[in-house]
Amino acid sequence: MKIPRKIVSAIRKEERFLIAAHVSPDGDAIGSAVALALTLESMGKKAAVYCKDPVPLQYFFLPGYKRIKTVLKDAARHDPVLILVDCNSPDRAGLEGFDFRRSMVIDHHETESGFGDLKWVDPGAAACGMMVYVLIQSLGVKITAAMATNLYAAIAVDTGTFRFGNTSAEVLKAGAELVELGARPAVIAESLYETWHIRRFRLLMMALCTLEIKGGVAIIHVTKQMLKAAGARPEDTEHFSNLPKTIGTVMISALLRETGGGLWKVSLRSKGEVDVLRVAEYFGGGGHRNAAGFRIGGDLKSARQALLRTIRRLRSV
Amino acid sequence: MKIPRKIVSAIRKEERFLIAAHVSPDGDAIGSAVALALTLESMGKKAAVYCKDPVPLQYFFLPGYKRIKTVLKDAARHDPVLILVDCNSPDRAGLEGFDFRRSMVIDHHETESGFGDLKWVDPGAAACGMMVYVLIQSLGVKITAAMATNLYAAIAVDTGTFRFGNTSAEVLKAGAELVELGARPAVIAESLYETWHIRRFRLLMMALCTLEIKGGVAIIHVTKQMLKAAGARPEDTEHFSNLPKTIGTVMISALLRETGGGLWKVSLRSKGEVDVLRVAEYFGGGGHRNAAGFRIGGDLKSARQALLRTIRRLRSV
Repeated sequence: MKIPRKIVSAIRKEERFLIAAHVSPDGDAIGSAVALALTLESMGKKAAVYCKDPVPLQYFFLPGYKRIKTVLKDAARHDPVLILVDCNSPDRAGLEGFDFRRSMVIDHHETESGFGDLKWVDPGAAACGMMVYVLIQSLGVKITAAMATNLYAAIAVDTGTFRFGNTSAEVLKAGAELVELGARPAVIAESLYETWHIRRFRLLMMALCTLEIKGGVAIIHVTKQMLKAAGARPEDTEHFSNLPKTIGTVMISALLRETGGGLWKVSLRSKGEVDVLRVAEYFGGGGHRNAAGFRIGGDLKSARQALLRTIRRLRSV
Repeated sequence: MKIPRKIVSAIRKEERFLIAAHVSPDGDAIGSAVALALTLESMGKKAAVYCKDPVPLQYFFLPGYKRIKTVLKDAARHDPVLILVDCNSPDRAGLEGFDFRRSMVIDHHETESGFGDLKWVDPGAAACGMMVYVLIQSLGVKITAAMATNLYAAIAVDTGTFRFGNTSAEVLKAGAELVELGARPAVIAESLYETWHIRRFRLLMMALCTLEIKGGVAIIHVTKQMLKAAGARPEDTEHFSNLPKTIGTVMISALLRETGGGLWKVSLRSKGEVDVLRVAEYFGGGGHRNAAGFRIGGDLKSARQALLRTIRRLRSV
């Protein structure tokens, strides 16, 4: 992984930063942002962290997560340099309409925007956490156990804890080094995957009962009514879309979640070489080859049909 | 990890081997046995592999798995040296009553038997595959992609693909090296976790519907009737016991599977420091701290009660 020298020198030179993660933050966004903030502080700099949406409960084990503020006012004071992490446009970070004197982008998403005075966008990076890990090493900063835990969690979330196609020798080696620096794999895995509320588990059972498989495409859904019946929250559906992939014949798995106002949030997952990013992009969404998403209007039946039709059409191209 | 020199020199000296894995073989037993057989053959030696039970379907992706024979007759010809892998007593390998002129044990299970002329039993090893990996390196044999795939799968199965408490920096480093040698993490993970028959998925749903949680202990069960209704096989229940651990309040998870003749096979899983090996040993079973098992007679209700009672009693000691 090659880091642009200008990014390293600009970080060395500047004194005040605002690190911003994307809305609906996941473990990669949160871990990357917090690890970077801890790094900048250890260099004697000021670093505020902003995310429009609150940190989900399952990430409360990350040391320093409380640095992430959902209110921009204080964070944006004193004219800081903006660093977008795990996203590459201001609107993905809920920052549309704000101006910054200087801005940097550190991201691994394929959909690149033109934004940023200094850009480091590497779609080949398994996680933004991998990029921040390399950055910290380039800055010559000693990695603490708190930083290691945030980076390990970031990498774990975006590689399915070393199960997805982006798991390379480099990623596993980084994992090993971060464990040596204080990250605890089992504690992190348990915190990420085994802290569900019983209500979330019940919602999963309800969602799996809606499973339909057609031509290698599995679709499950969660309506507002189901959320209410289970007493669960929208963010409780995270990871649900992965489950139907357990079935050997399923190559693409989709979760449709009703968000209100006649809209559905669609999360797509795929196996191996099967590309769901193209499907998401067709509907105006984004993501990665094996994990992407978009929003669609209409009733459940028509949304499901539009999805199946588009997958079929793109496959035949 | 320290390997006894006598094991290395005996393997160098001997010419004919019978590698035996434990009954109901898992990925660690299969991957370790096959990787070792490939190693011995690359040294110009003869190596047969025996397992009393057939290799489960989900391991058919492992290169060389067909070497594993369920009939001993041919494998035991010409007076070979016996090597037990991933077990340490002849009866665990279905070899009770057979005699061998020389025997070795390579295992990481805590319950050590007195068996074996040469013993290498390391309960600190995350997987038997880690031990075989170190052994191959000590033998100076070049690791092929086929060996690397078997070793990576062995380690993946016994560490929950780097999620369990036995995941150390050493384990992740071995993973990275094996990827460099040709193991493909995503292909292996998909083969291990995402090749279920729809019948197995249906059985899981049925099993999860039996979930009961008491005092941090989750119990699910699978009866013969449920197996029949789902059209599934007993080995389809592998990993089922892990699922209820997803719930934050669950510290111990148990799967009771009816095996016939009024018997239940109990699989226990636990989080963090919680020890289920003690529970299994109380009932005459074995395993590791976080994954153990035993058999118990009686009807479902009494088996469940005996389990809960024993967990309560052992916890209060």
